[in-house]
Amino acid sequence: MNDEKAALGQKILRIKRQLGLSWDDVGRALGHSPVWTCAACLGQMSMSAETAEKAAALFDLDATEQAVLETIPYRGSLPGGVPTDPLIYRFYELIQVYGTTWKELIHEEFGDGIMSAIDFDMALERQPDQKGDRVKITMSGKFLPYKRY
Amino acid sequence: MNDEKAALGQKILRIKRQLGLSWDDVGRALGHSPVWTCAACLGQMSMSAETAEKAAALFDLDATEQAVLETIPYRGSLPGGVPTDPLIYRFYELIQVYGTTWKELIHEEFGDGIMSAIDFDMALERQPDQKGDRVKITMSGKFLPYKRY
Amino acid sequence: MNDEKAALGQKILRIKRQLGLSWDDVGRALGHSPVWTCAACLGQMSMSAETAEKAAALFDLDATEQAVLETIPYRGSLPGGVPTDPLIYRFYELIQVYGTTWKELIHEEFGDGIMSAIDFDMALERQPDQKGDRVKITMSGKFLPYKRY
Amino acid sequence: MNDEKAALGQKILRIKRQLGLSWDDVGRALGHSPVWTCAACLGQMSMSAETAEKAAALFDLDATEQAVLETIPYRGSLPGGVPTDPLIYRFYELIQVYGTTWKELIHEEFGDGIMSAIDFDMALERQPDQKGDRVKITMSGKFLPYKRY
Amino acid sequence: MNDEKAALGQKILRIKRQLGLSWDDVGRALGHSPVWTCAACLGQMSMSAETAEKAAALFDLDATEQAVLETIPYRGSLPGGVPTDPLIYRFYELIQVYGTTWKELIHEEFGDGIMSAIDFDMALERQPDQKGDRVKITMSGKFLPYKRY
Amino acid sequence: MNDEKAALGQKILRIKRQLGLSWDDVGRALGHSPVWTCAACLGQMSMSAETAEKAAALFDLDATEQAVLETIPYRGSLPGGVPTDPLIYRFYELIQVYGTTWKELIHEEFGDGIMSAIDFDMALERQPDQKGDRVKITMSGKFLPYKRY
Amino acid sequence: MNDEKAALGQKILRIKRQLGLSWDDVGRALGHSPVWTCAACLGQMSMSAETAEKAAALFDLDATEQAVLETIPYRGSLPGGVPTDPLIYRFYELIQVYGTTWKELIHEEFGDGIMSAIDFDMALERQPDQKGDRVKITMSGKFLPYKRY
Amino acid sequence: MNDEKAALGQKILRIKRQLGLSWDDVGRALGHSPVWTCAACLGQMSMSAETAEKAAALFDLDATEQAVLETIPYRGSLPGGVPTDPLIYRFYELIQVYGTTWKELIHEEFGDGIMSAIDFDMALERQPDQKGDRVKITMSGKFLPYKRY
Amino acid sequence: MNDEKAALGQKILRIKRQLGLSWDDVGRALGHSPVWTCAACLGQMSMSAETAEKAAALFDLDATEQAVLETIPYRGSLPGGVPTDPLIYRFYELIQVYGTTWKELIHEEFGDGIMSAIDFDMALERQPDQKGDRVKITMSGKFLPYKRY
Amino acid sequence: MNDEKAALGQKILRIKRQLGLSWDDVGRALGHSPVWTCAACLGQMSMSAETAEKAAALFDLDATEQAVLETIPYRGSLPGGVPTDPLIYRFYELIQVYGTTWKELIHEEFGDGIMSAIDFDMALERQPDQKGDRVKITMSGKFLPYKRY
Repeated sequence: MNDEKAALGQKILRIKRQLGLSWDDVGRALGHSPVWTCAACLGQMSMSAETAEKAAALFDLDATEQAVLETIPYRGSLPGGVPTDPLIYRFYELIQVYGTTWKELIHEEFGDGIMSAIDFDMALERQPDQKGDRVKITMSGKFLPYKRY
Repeated sequence: MNDEKAALGQKILRIKRQLGLSWDDVGRALGHSPVWTCAACLGQMSMSAETAEKAAALFDLDATEQAVLETIPYRGSLPGGVPTDPLIYRFYELIQVYGTTWKELIHEEFGDGIMSAIDFDMALERQPDQKGDRVKITMSGKFLPYKRY
Repeated sequence: MNDEKAALGQKILRIKRQLGLSWDDVGRALGHSPVWTCAACLGQMSMSAETAEKAAALFDLDATEQAVLETIPYRGSLPGGVPTDPLIYRFYELIQVYGTTWKELIHEEFGDGIMSAIDFDMALERQPDQKGDRVKITMSGKFLPYKRY
Repeated sequence: MNDEKAALGQKILRIKRQLGLSWDDVGRALGHSPVWTCAACLGQMSMSAETAEKAAALFDLDATEQAVLETIPYRGSLPGGVPTDPLIYRFYELIQVYGTTWKELIHEEFGDGIMSAIDFDMALERQPDQKGDRVKITMSGKFLPYKRY
Repeated sequence: MNDEKAALGQKILRIKRQLGLSWDDVGRALGHSPVWTCAACLGQMSMSAETAEKAAALFDLDATEQAVLETIPYRGSLPGGVPTDPLIYRFYELIQVYGTTWKELIHEEFGDGIMSAIDFDMALERQPDQKGDRVKITMSGKFLPYKRY
Repeated sequence: MNDEKAALGQKILRIKRQLGLSWDDVGRALGHSPVWTCAACLGQMSMSAETAEKAAALFDLDATEQAVLETIPYRGSLPGGVPTDPLIYRFYELIQVYGTTWKELIHEEFGDGIMSAIDFDMALERQPDQKGDRVKITMSGKFLPYKRY
Repeated sequence: MNDEKAALGQKILRIKRQLGLSWDDVGRALGHSPVWTCAACLGQMSMSAETAEKAAALFDLDATEQAVLETIPYRGSLPGGVPTDPLIYRFYELIQVYGTTWKELIHEEFGDGIMSAIDFDMALERQPDQKGDRVKITMSGKFLPYKRY
Repeated sequence: MNDEKAALGQKILRIKRQLGLSWDDVGRALGHSPVWTCAACLGQMSMSAETAEKAAALFDLDATEQAVLETIPYRGSLPGGVPTDPLIYRFYELIQVYGTTWKELIHEEFGDGIMSAIDFDMALERQPDQKGDRVKITMSGKFLPYKRY
Repeated sequence: MNDEKAALGQKILRIKRQLGLSWDDVGRALGHSPVWTCAACLGQMSMSAETAEKAAALFDLDATEQAVLETIPYRGSLPGGVPTDPLIYRFYELIQVYGTTWKELIHEEFGDGIMSAIDFDMALERQPDQKGDRVKITMSGKFLPYKRY
Repeated sequence: MNDEKAALGQKILRIKRQLGLSWDDVGRALGHSPVWTCAACLGQMSMSAETAEKAAALFDLDATEQAVLETIPYRGSLPGGVPTDPLIYRFYELIQVYGTTWKELIHEEFGDGIMSAIDFDMALERQPDQKGDRVKITMSGKFLPYKRY
């Protein structure tokens, strides 16, 4: 299933390039944010039937491929426990450096619990800056308190 | 060195609790954001002499401890490659799920390069929400283009 | 912090043995289920101030120890990624054998999402059986649907 | 053998979708619980000749495929020691958080021994709840006392 | 707990040497086989109260040490997943070479299931042989059929 | 080479099933014990020319396949350092639980050295038992004393 | 994508050999240093459209292959965390031996921060020496100070 | 031995700070380059008797400590196979990105063989640059041709 | 490249068997020792053009295959960090048992440095012995002193 | 036990240095080869009572320490699966490069079996050479044929 989703992701990347579309364009066509749209096309999210239909129309996919977009993936997009690609590794490095800080600050503000990675959304934008533009990432996850029973 | 920094971090946590301070309070006293301040107190950042002096005054630390706050740490706050604590693990899970998406979107917007984890800042706040308040994290890192030479 | 929690857990186990208490007794005294109570005493859950006070009274702990019961742990109670103890390993084996089955059945019933391990409770009881009594474990976790944004 | 079982599992999933069957339907047709039935179709259990015949009839499989359902698998359905898929990872997290608690409670109740993962059964159901429905999992495994010889 | 058991095991080894006892002698004194007796003294099995009392008498242990012999260990006596000691490694090598053979032969004879490592006993003896004496190990574990439910 | 041996092993398993032979039958036809015979057919032992000829006759193999049976394998039949299949894992668990016991007992009886896994043989039989039949495994390996030079 | 880049890298190596070109020649033709040129041809760097066009002309590649040269790779060229090839391992050994020295010296000279591996260039040359010629590698990376915010 | 060397390294760092010395100063006093001097003080190189004597004089060490500087270390200064500290990780990243490039270029220039990490020296200097100063590292290792015998 | 070298190695093994040649014969034909010759044919060494020509003549290889023999391999012939094959594992065991002894003795005799594995040769011969013939391996590697600079 | 052996090894190294003895001297005094003697003093071999007595006399050890020399070690002298020290790593590298060659040559000469690492001896000597002296290591291990039963 995942191999199908991965292969379809590569195909969509090729078609998107040929059509000259940005992820913003694709997101608008599908009615979702660019981040979620990209993750879904790369095979890490499942699309609703409606969304998959729009994606199939946009990228000219057949019924089988449309069905693949709807299937729920076995998630996890990285080979190996520690990513080797420098762009992705920097996020792993943030965990190494800031992991205990996140823990301390979220517990101070909310008490014992976690930030959900499921009821979660994210946006990514360019932040113009004289000394060099910056990548700005905004994450928002529901706080889930640990149940005491 | 790091053992010293870790032990000092635990001591600061205890004093902070006794003084009834929040990380916001501590950050304001040190002249830095709460996130960076917390990371520095937990031993993952080095303080300037000035900042260390303020921290020593606030937490009533001696000269040796003040010097420890200025030393540069061997960074990496997590035992093992994959974190076991659920709060911290969720960030690792984000890498597994969104790693390729970050790569795709940053490359689309900026070309070949990475988001710096060094020229980087972050903020964390509570996002009120009827269905349950949310943790909002805003990251900003300078885009560094891969040099072609 | 966790070393403190682990050491305190060992101390509580000794006192509990001396007092001749069962986890049922302890749970009733603290106003929580035996499973959660045991997990909290072993250092994997944080107690509210009230509960910690009751625990301190029951086990004759001092103020510092009571505070340790309230701190939020760095969770993860097992040395190594794959547990070596046979009792605990069997649960790991269940993941190896039933992991994909859980995924299939939960997705069929609820759609894309997960069973929360945070908004979660569990009970454990003896199930009498002629061919040998059985361990019965009942888990209940809130279904969290993957957000599409 | 296992590759055959895995491939057959994928085929059965496709056919099941086309026939519009639920695992409940499949389980009833095969005379087994939905959990066991799903695990067996995904290749983690071996079917008896009778059951395999019913499965072959239901899914229109040929004799070779029917034989594959009867073969005993090399069990273990997960790539890597720690699962990356969030739904399955939560069960691994339960081991990290509750492993020592299970050990303590089972030993208190039954003495030295383990809960069998072989003489074992499990059920999974939807637990309606105003704050959001819950996944309820009931496990039952024979207690096996450690032999002292 | 386990550190206590390990330390006690080392102490027992020293006393046993001083007393000039063999594991056969110790086993006879405790009313158990030499293999189980040795495993229990080294901290991998829990003794009944009676047996622990006999052991305490034999090795002149105090009440605390006697209690340690009764506690149930977190089992697993080897540092690292693959043992480095040549004597112990040879058993790991047997798994690498004969693992699939055991699986094939046990399934042929008994059907789907396993040999229990809990309802299990073992004996070890010297097998005189002209070409060099041999180590003979006899294992006996209850066959546990996989439940189909 | 090993892929050839593995593939041939799978082929032999299929033919054996069609011929309705047991490993006892095969062993008798080849003039070897069932355990060794099974290991050799699964590709973990090399056959002598004579034995390979008998095997080729029994299973109707061609000259190339007969040669494969004679080649010496790169031994090691398990994917990953710790086996995931429950039947095979139990043997790994025995090493975790009994590794130090074997070491202690063999050294007591024989002095410094090891049990050979090369000059080694093994038998496996059903041990009838009212409470459930048992798997009995008898291993015999030459003791090899460590050379002091 | 990366498989494409790797396969294309192997093809370029073959053509380069047939054409009798050195990496110096290739670098000059592409307008880049030999080190970067080689890394880009082996698939670890992305070429600009212009450079890819020159490379396509030089190696007689088609439009699809030219596009592959422009794609941004999932970087990381080594199987496994620790390289086995002796030439590459020596660089890993340098990290083991000199890692803390680099950290000490860079921090002494520049303060807290890192040497960029992105805004980075490198040259490699033969250093004639009577006792045997030497490999000389010159690395230059921008110093990035850790942001204090 | 190494623990002694590591502890002595930490002591030397403290004294060096108190004396206000740079590694350049220390290197000049010892008659070696700053890089080698720093590595030797941190415990990754062994000093000759003469050099150790000079170091003892400079840092006011006793005879035992002087002897420690002369002992040959068990080299390897990093906890874990992949370094977590960002400064040191960047060098690991260079291996991931440039490993195959080094192999290709060194083989092109020198044939089959390696760059020695033993008959090796290195220098590190600040490279002024308008856009931000750079770290310049120059490595020189003897080429060692693979012997064909 | 290495897959080509590995595949060619397997082909050469088959032809060598058909020709009834020993590695001694092959070594003599190629003008190299049997050990190096075998390593080169198995793909772990690169042949000079001359030697590759002789090998091509001996084994009737075509020009492409001859070129493969000349290419420099990505060395490392073992799957996994710790070899599973018993014959090869014994050499790993020697490192575990004798690693610190080699270090001690070589440093005593030669000072700080290593035995080269590049300027290295080896021979292997049968050593007749009444109690069973022995494998005799003679290794010779140039001592490389650590440079102090 | 092993910690005792390791600590005693370090003590012996200190005394040996003070006495100005070489391993040759120590070996002669104990009546064993320098290699075995060194391995035994470092804690990887067990001494006979006689030898331990001579060692105790030579190094002025007490009765407890003499007993430690006689105990049989849990062998394995290296932290981590792959050694980081360059001198020891080179032997690991030999396994990576020559592992399959040893297997091929030993099987050609002796048939299916292994070289014993138990009935094994080794010598190490300086081999004078104009281009730089060489380390010569001679290993001899009994060939053990795989038993076919």
